[in-house]
This record gives sequence, C-alpha cells and structure tokens, in this order.
Amino acid sequence: MARPHPTLWHMSGYQVDDATAEDIAEEVATYRPVADALRVLADLSIRTTVSAQEAEAARGHLLAAAEILSRQAEEGPYGVRHSTGGAGLTRAFGNSVVGVRNPVAPPLQIVRAEDGVHADFSLSSQYEGPPNLVHGGVLSMILDQLLGEAAAAAGKPGMTGTLTIRYRRATPLGALRGEAKVDRVEGIKTYAVGQISDAEGVTVEAEGVFILPKWAREARRAPERFD
Amino acid sequence: MARPHPTLWHMSGYQVDDATAEDIAEEVATYRPVADALRVLADLSIRTTVSAQEAEAARGHLLAAAEILSRQAEEGPYGVRHSTGGAGLTRAFGNSVVGVRNPVAPPLQIVRAEDGVHADFSLSSQYEGPPNLVHGGVLSMILDQLLGEAAAAAGKPGMTGTLTIRYRRATPLGALRGEAKVDRVEGIKTYAVGQISDAEGVTVEAEGVFILPKWAREARRAPERFD
Repeated sequence: MARPHPTLWHMSGYQVDDATAEDIAEEVATYRPVADALRVLADLSIRTTVSAQEAEAARGHLLAAAEILSRQAEEGPYGVRHSTGGAGLTRAFGNSVVGVRNPVAPPLQIVRAEDGVHADFSLSSQYEGPPNLVHGGVLSMILDQLLGEAAAAAGKPGMTGTLTIRYRRATPLGALRGEAKVDRVEGIKTYAVGQISDAEGVTVEAEGVFILPKWAREARRAPERFD
Repeated sequence: MARPHPTLWHMSGYQVDDATAEDIAEEVATYRPVADALRVLADLSIRTTVSAQEAEAARGHLLAAAEILSRQAEEGPYGVRHSTGGAGLTRAFGNSVVGVRNPVAPPLQIVRAEDGVHADFSLSSQYEGPPNLVHGGVLSMILDQLLGEAAAAAGKPGMTGTLTIRYRRATPLGALRGEAKVDRVEGIKTYAVGQISDAEGVTVEAEGVFILPKWAREARRAPERFD
C-alpha cells in the first residue's frame, strides 16, 4: 500500500478512479463478509475431521458460492486503486497482507502514527509452520508489508530492494504486534526497521532497503503529469 | 517440513502416529478438494463484482459449508505429523506454503533432487502486492520454505536464523519456479541459497542460515529416545 507521488499513479500501474467515501464503504460492506467467511473456512479446512460425505456436502456449498461470485467478476487481480472522488483513499483490497477482500490476508490493519506504523493482529492455524508456531515465511511476509508502509508513511515510498529477517526465537500462533519505522535515508535508499512481538517480547526483527525505481525518480523530477 | 532425527519428533512438537499410506491418501482425497475450492473462492472474493444480494447469497453457502466442517474438528492447528505406520511420511498439511489442506498455501509441491530442491507453481490474484505483481512478502515466504527444505533434504534440518532476500526486479503473477540448495555448512550453521524465476530469468534471490536449536543438538547426542 505504498502511496507514490500523484504523478506516479498511472505509471506504476495504479488505477485512478472517482470512487466516493460512500462507494468505498459499500464495497467493503458488500464483499468483506465474504472474505471473512473464507478466513473462517480456511482454518476449518485444516482442522475438520468430518466424514467424506460431509466434506463433499460442504464442498457442494463452496461450489455453489463460487458459481454465484463468478457471475460477474473482473478479469485480472485487484491492483491498487486511488480515488480522486473526494475519498482520497488508496485501496489495496486484494493485497496479500492487508487486503480486506483477500482471505489469504489476516488482514492486518496498519496504523500510521507519528513515529512509524504498527498493527495488532492474531494468526490462526492457516499461518502455521512448525507445530503451534507461526511459519517463518509468514513473519517475513508481514514484515515486508510493515516496513514498506513505514517507508511510504515517511514520504519515501519504494520497491523493496533487500529484506533481512532475524529470527530471535519461535513465534507462537495467536495475538501478535508488528511495528516498523524509517531508520535512515541515504540518497535514493530508505532504510526501514521493524519487529514482531508476542506478550513476552520481540520474536523477529527486520531491516529493509526501499528504493524508488529510476523511472519513478525521473517522473518525480518532471514537471508535467504522465497520465 | 524439516524432518528432525527420530528422537526429536516429540520434543519438537511433532506428532507421531501409525497412519498407513492408505490412510494418508484417504485424508488427501477427502479434504484437499475442500481446500482447492477455497483457493478458487479466494481469487473470486477479490475479483467479483456481483450485487450485494448475490454476495449475501454466496455468503449463505459459505456459512452452510462452515457449519458442516465444524461439526467435528480438532481443537488446535494441524502441526507436523510423522507416521510410523509403514508410510514413513511427514505430513505438514496445514503449512502456509506447502499444506494441501491450507487454502492460504498455493500449495507448493517441492521436489527433492540430487542437488537441492525445486518447485514449479503459479500465483493468482490473492498473492498480489503492487499491481499485477507478486507481493514481495509472498516471495520471501516461499523462499523461507524452499531454503528450509533444502537444508532438511541435505540432512541439516533447523530453524531459520536469518533470512536475506534480494529483489532483483518485479515478479509478475503467473507461472514461476523456485529453487534452493545448501551452499555450505559451518559448525551448527547451515547456509542455504535459493531463487525464484519467471520465464525471463531470476527475479529474487535469497540466503538463509538454519540452526538446530541447542536442545535439539543435545537430544541428538543423547543415546536414549525422549518420547
């Protein structure tokens, strides 16, 4: 959910539309309950021990739901959409970490504060790696998003160049907190740092280097809009 | 899906059971179709543009499926299970990257070859970060799993200590290939390297350090089983 400079919206593949705050609220009210039901189902898909007949009956309902949802659908992925319609909001509703319409995403609700960003979230069985522990890769995925948002929040949006994750100790499934902030800026490189903690303290630390691509830096210097 | 020494199964939280090859095939045949339907639904949840009435009707089917699957279910996450029943298989069916019963997982089917591991896979809209591109965090998640499996395949299972990801260029959604191998072993540290490629070549590189925890090293030296 990096938010590039306005002139970059189109060049970076962002869609610009005129959705109002009401339009966006309606989109969330309509489709988020579907994604939330799918989050519950992802957890059940792993834990269920019902009979083959019952599993097949459940699958029948899933296929019926898929038939309905596919009656009208966009061709491609959600992308990132920016509204000029008074809402001034960037929507990344399909994003793998924060997307409210994406059942793969927990989803994190990342809060921008004065000194960086943070998010409180909870991970259930679909985020497991070693027994009862969060998958190390899931932790790196969440930290990539948090660090990228911290860079964007500080006015230094960019693509991840390098991401380094240090696993201090195992992270249990359940309630967790993520935090990230910009550590320093060196030329075109923005260094962000972050961590994930459980109730006992930090379990994982991360550092990321974010770089605005050359085409984007050149666009920023150009006086005219490219859209 | 690291596979520790037998004496470590219980200490590391692995469950040991006597499931036969037939039992395991039946588990996959019963529950994988449910997870596969949920994978299709995750993509549709992001792309659908049906009316609020239709979305609510689809949700009704999802709640009906959830009711059926929750009639009988295990309390906790899937964990990692090792069979002594002749199958000799380790099942991580809930794993976020490779778990066939986990709709969050693509799932990767990782092949162990002589010189490391590899997997061909395809990522659709639920793995998006920037528009039309794979989320950088999803790539790090997949690489964590690949590197860990490469270390385990080389007889050096361990927990991830440090993971470093270098993003060479943007990775498009669609068909991709992941590869990993052990680069070197230094004492208790195993260094694994890997990459993800699209049709044009490498997009992301990774290096990971895997360390067998102290309690596990001590258990390996002990002559008796701990279970």
